[in-house]
Amino acid sequence: MRAASDLPAAMTTPPAAYLDPRTGRTWPLDPPRWCGDGRAPLLLTPLPGLRRDAIRRERRSLWRYAAALPFAPEDPISLGEGCTPLVPRRVAGATALLKCEWFMPTGSFKDRGASVMLSLLRAQGVREVLEDSSGNGGAAVAAYAAAGGMRAKILVPAGTSPAKTVQARASGAAIELVPGSRQDCAEEALRQAERIFYASHNWHPFFLHGTKTLAYELWEDLGFRAPDNVIVPCGAGSNVLGCGIGFEELKRAGEIARPPRIFAAQPENCAPIARAFLGAPAAAPAPTIAEGTAIARPIRLPEVLQVLRDTGGGAVMLNEAEIGAATLDLARGGVYVEPTSAQAAAAFAKLLASGAIRAEETTVVVLTGTGLKATPRIAELMGVSL
Amino acid sequence: MRAASDLPAAMTTPPAAYLDPRTGRTWPLDPPRWCGDGRAPLLLTPLPGLRRDAIRRERRSLWRYAAALPFAPEDPISLGEGCTPLVPRRVAGATALLKCEWFMPTGSFKDRGASVMLSLLRAQGVREVLEDSSGNGGAAVAAYAAAGGMRAKILVPAGTSPAKTVQARASGAAIELVPGSRQDCAEEALRQAERIFYASHNWHPFFLHGTKTLAYELWEDLGFRAPDNVIVPCGAGSNVLGCGIGFEELKRAGEIARPPRIFAAQPENCAPIARAFLGAPAAAPAPTIAEGTAIARPIRLPEVLQVLRDTGGGAVMLNEAEIGAATLDLARGGVYVEPTSAQAAAAFAKLLASGAIRAEETTVVVLTGTGLKATPRIAELMGVSL
Repeated sequence: MRAASDLPAAMTTPPAAYLDPRTGRTWPLDPPRWCGDGRAPLLLTPLPGLRRDAIRRERRSLWRYAAALPFAPEDPISLGEGCTPLVPRRVAGATALLKCEWFMPTGSFKDRGASVMLSLLRAQGVREVLEDSSGNGGAAVAAYAAAGGMRAKILVPAGTSPAKTVQARASGAAIELVPGSRQDCAEEALRQAERIFYASHNWHPFFLHGTKTLAYELWEDLGFRAPDNVIVPCGAGSNVLGCGIGFEELKRAGEIARPPRIFAAQPENCAPIARAFLGAPAAAPAPTIAEGTAIARPIRLPEVLQVLRDTGGGAVMLNEAEIGAATLDLARGGVYVEPTSAQAAAAFAKLLASGAIRAEETTVVVLTGTGLKATPRIAELMGVSL
Repeated sequence: MRAASDLPAAMTTPPAAYLDPRTGRTWPLDPPRWCGDGRAPLLLTPLPGLRRDAIRRERRSLWRYAAALPFAPEDPISLGEGCTPLVPRRVAGATALLKCEWFMPTGSFKDRGASVMLSLLRAQGVREVLEDSSGNGGAAVAAYAAAGGMRAKILVPAGTSPAKTVQARASGAAIELVPGSRQDCAEEALRQAERIFYASHNWHPFFLHGTKTLAYELWEDLGFRAPDNVIVPCGAGSNVLGCGIGFEELKRAGEIARPPRIFAAQPENCAPIARAFLGAPAAAPAPTIAEGTAIARPIRLPEVLQVLRDTGGGAVMLNEAEIGAATLDLARGGVYVEPTSAQAAAAFAKLLASGAIRAEETTVVVLTGTGLKATPRIAELMGVSL
């Protein structure tokens, strides 16, 4: 249901569509679709965004921003995702606003994308979905499929430790072990996508329209203004793109003058986006403690780079020692997050030190997932044997 | 800082004090104190509560209800605790309102108590605290001590698996392994309490004034009315007592006509409170999957029973199969919580079946902790080897 104030915009804006940003080709939102011609990654055509009087303030979930979505499910699949706290803390001698995205049903920001993507797919009649992820994405898709009465099949590399998939398995998802690497697993998913709808947190454009609610929320948290800077851990880039889309919509709606500068934090051991942004030579990926951002071939590389450039933001590469130290520093202040997440705090310190951002600016550090998912890694950092 | 509307009440009410409810003896709130004569457990004297216009609505944490506390720290130790979602879901053929208390800094409701208790203690000059808990209580006290720049020492039984204490250890807490049982550990804590301030989640009365914010929040969630029933997992009873105190204050403030009926869910294998309430014979405790509620000797047994009786509520005992089934049922709906928490849902089903509560009533099922802390237990329930 749209607020009356949105009607004029809706009446003059063409209907939203899937968009291949590299060719300009569009497709209607129905039937369900996750890619374009030749397996091109899709976005949506630009949306009008929402104005503050269209927020459904009685809803304590990201569905308070439903008017910013191009569909209005009567009964969204919601488990209380979103409305996470923004907590000011001293980091590296300056104040960072920690956006605590692990206050979520499954413990990570991925619940934003899963809630929106699967609410759409269920409304479109999809009853079974395929996903490939042994991490936060798989847990989120499995939980929201379960909450929505849908079946889920999650492909994970055969070497994945059983503990990592207990959460997705408990949702009733079928876990299929795929021999080989993470990349082999992604390729197997593309093959099976011929038979089961591929509700991929990396591919489906509505996943990004879930993560974009982070931008709306930050704007509302800050009294309806944009921060100066947003720093996010970056693997495939769904938070960079989500923030890019969300803040651009807020600008389009006349709610903010310009988006914040968006900065992507990546592990030096697997940093294709940061290397491309910084003009550093490509490098073969190596293992990293920041597992959630170890994406060697991000499918939306050009679009992510464009957000970083368009907003005047940037990219930061972090070595393993820096990531580990940031994880423990946060924990020693009571903030217990995955090493993947801690990269945003490490990047804040480096950006301050380099002068790229200043202490007196309003800077959001997005902490994407709970440390409870990384017990073995954090134990290792402390030298504790499990 | 109190709102003007509270001033008349504050002017006519005697200053708050520690109260031994069994003797009526009181002590001033300063100096710091965790027990009465002969190690009697303390409460506070009755407080006036708050009216809805005293809520600090700009605060997204339990500190929005600061006017309901008898102290007003300028700079509370806050990590965004509270303001958790209340999610309607079908359980056992009826609608339960799931209060998702794991959307918290350390993943459990214990953060409410830790935030309030340690904010008081820090304001009182305490710089080092002692706690005994290998579970949610220890993690919460360790994190808030860390966030507040205080030292923490956590005693845990020597047999505790190292994985269980990684979270508290990462906060910088000193973990001390105590030979023997959980009870031996509690007794060692009482000995060490001569030297270090005992900031026990079981003993300190301000912990309960943190957990009482659950009642305020439910009242606000429901549009400033009390639910008909609240069902909580019950170990030592901090949520029963917190709800008892909070709703009683709301009644005193004229905001509600009467408190909801409060129901305690306990594992049959360790159910001293439920047995006492139901008049069942005492039984030696046995191991239970609901570890967080395995408290063989709850120190506030009479006070917990009184809340259950005064509110017209009750107690429910659950066997291991019922607890396990409820855990998996919730997970298969996307709600991934500890077996300890799932007891509240299992009790909801039993209370419905017995006719003690009716489907058309407004019933809150309090889910206290994330399933991510119980991976080995949940794997076991599914027959997955880790």
